[in-house]
Amino acid sequence: MDTLIYYLGMAGTVAFAITAVLAVAPKGIDLFGATVMGIITSVGGGTVRDLILDVPVFWSNDLNYIWVASASSVAAFSAVSFFSNKQINSIMLYTDALGAALFAIEGAEKVWGLNYGLPLAPIILGIMTAIGGGLIRDILSGRQNLLMTREIYAVPVLFGCTLYVILQHWLPQYPAGNALFCTVFIFTLRCAAIHWNLSVPEWLMSNPKHE
Amino acid sequence: MDTLIYYLGMAGTVAFAITAVLAVAPKGIDLFGATVMGIITSVGGGTVRDLILDVPVFWSNDLNYIWVASASSVAAFSAVSFFSNKQINSIMLYTDALGAALFAIEGAEKVWGLNYGLPLAPIILGIMTAIGGGLIRDILSGRQNLLMTREIYAVPVLFGCTLYVILQHWLPQYPAGNALFCTVFIFTLRCAAIHWNLSVPEWLMSNPKHE
Amino acid sequence: MDTLIYYLGMAGTVAFAITAVLAVAPKGIDLFGATVMGIITSVGGGTVRDLILDVPVFWSNDLNYIWVASASSVAAFSAVSFFSNKQINSIMLYTDALGAALFAIEGAEKVWGLNYGLPLAPIILGIMTAIGGGLIRDILSGRQNLLMTREIYAVPVLFGCTLYVILQHWLPQYPAGNALFCTVFIFTLRCAAIHWNLSVPEWLMSNPKHE
Repeated sequence: MDTLIYYLGMAGTVAFAITAVLAVAPKGIDLFGATVMGIITSVGGGTVRDLILDVPVFWSNDLNYIWVASASSVAAFSAVSFFSNKQINSIMLYTDALGAALFAIEGAEKVWGLNYGLPLAPIILGIMTAIGGGLIRDILSGRQNLLMTREIYAVPVLFGCTLYVILQHWLPQYPAGNALFCTVFIFTLRCAAIHWNLSVPEWLMSNPKHE
Repeated sequence: MDTLIYYLGMAGTVAFAITAVLAVAPKGIDLFGATVMGIITSVGGGTVRDLILDVPVFWSNDLNYIWVASASSVAAFSAVSFFSNKQINSIMLYTDALGAALFAIEGAEKVWGLNYGLPLAPIILGIMTAIGGGLIRDILSGRQNLLMTREIYAVPVLFGCTLYVILQHWLPQYPAGNALFCTVFIFTLRCAAIHWNLSVPEWLMSNPKHE
Repeated sequence: MDTLIYYLGMAGTVAFAITAVLAVAPKGIDLFGATVMGIITSVGGGTVRDLILDVPVFWSNDLNYIWVASASSVAAFSAVSFFSNKQINSIMLYTDALGAALFAIEGAEKVWGLNYGLPLAPIILGIMTAIGGGLIRDILSGRQNLLMTREIYAVPVLFGCTLYVILQHWLPQYPAGNALFCTVFIFTLRCAAIHWNLSVPEWLMSNPKHE
């Protein structure tokens, strides 16, 4: 189980570093600036989570996270010139969805494992791990953040983390299955939202006003 | 006294969650995104304060803060369609003033009670508790933050927290009175600034330059 | 050595408080708002570093940092009307370079002295101390952050911190010399980048795309 969670976290690190480079590269940035952005984005959400939990920040014990984020940033930076802006944006959205799904369950599992503030805290901090890095990325790159988009963004993560807590409570004998299922659940739901431009029903939506 | 401070904090949580929803709803957002914004805004300032104080984050022991922030966000989201943009903006400013007044004294009191870095730290961290959540809200919603507005914003909080430290030092027998008086002081001063568009004297103001 | 590092930190505090006031004053702000910005900018990077290190935040033990930041902000605010916007921007870039150089080595030294996550963490947290405050300043003042500029910005700090770790490892008998040399190294490199508009070679640069 620990190994599974470790690899979920590493995969999320790769995904978020890539999204950061994709977010800034079209605006013109050098490799080193892009790598710093990649590192901040991929460790940002988990760092805030660990500070709140008051446990050692995850990457301080295992600097592989920094190396993986750096290598992913360099790879994404090299690849970015082969794509058009529209393709880059689309790849970014799906990669962000993957990273958010991975980090949500990794975060929720860490909080669950520490018995911290059950049952609400694993959900809250799972969401924070999943979207924290992306919010920092969007702020630093000057993009409108994904919470403010019309397609559903917070909902899949909220549902997935809630489902994970429920499953861990009722089916504690299958931790790996629960983690994998919820990760796939979040990723699928968010991908569907991006692909079909899904939003919540009209009455759960505020109207943009122009006056 | 502890009960009073607790209710000050809860009232501030309600106020800031409402301001967050009012800040993002006119741009078009779904209920869940708005609620995430409400939670981040209302716990943001206090979370940073507690991380700096190195004490457990306040909402981890008492998840009521999260529930109250969520319920306030949902209520504000339902109400927002009844108002025009101009009314929303005005309500937001006054609600922010209320939240800032409540959080400033709640924050200053917490630091004072811990005997942390007296006499300056209660003032600094009171200001941080009061404006931290609002700064996060303005950054995430893409608004210009309230520190950069022409009406006085930092001054009432600074004066109120300073006054609170002075009163607690000289009149320690009236903690509840001191807390209430300073909260009302900040709120009144900031409301006056909003209502009459008060700014500091010209020589304490930098001139916007256009070249 | 401790005294040297202390003064490096104080000088960096002065420098960053000044850059914050220079960044916001041309947009029209009052003295108190500008001072809050100065304080947040000058203690921001080191605060994040200390939270990650899980040591007491540096300014909580020594409130001189807050006083120095406040006084520097007031001084910069008074001086700002004597300069044109173009001069202000230029002074801001060079002062930021000085602050980043001072904070990079102060941060790297603190992490090195704690034997925390060697050899990578002193470099990572040196960079975070150096650029953290500036990123917060640029976000709050609504400027594009310096990581996204065309002249090299992250590179001098990265090279300087790496060099410092190498020198401390091979020449531990000269800590003060190492610290001073690396600070001057970063400052010189960044000044050269600003003055001659230096950027990394074209192949290390992504192209801005317009489609």
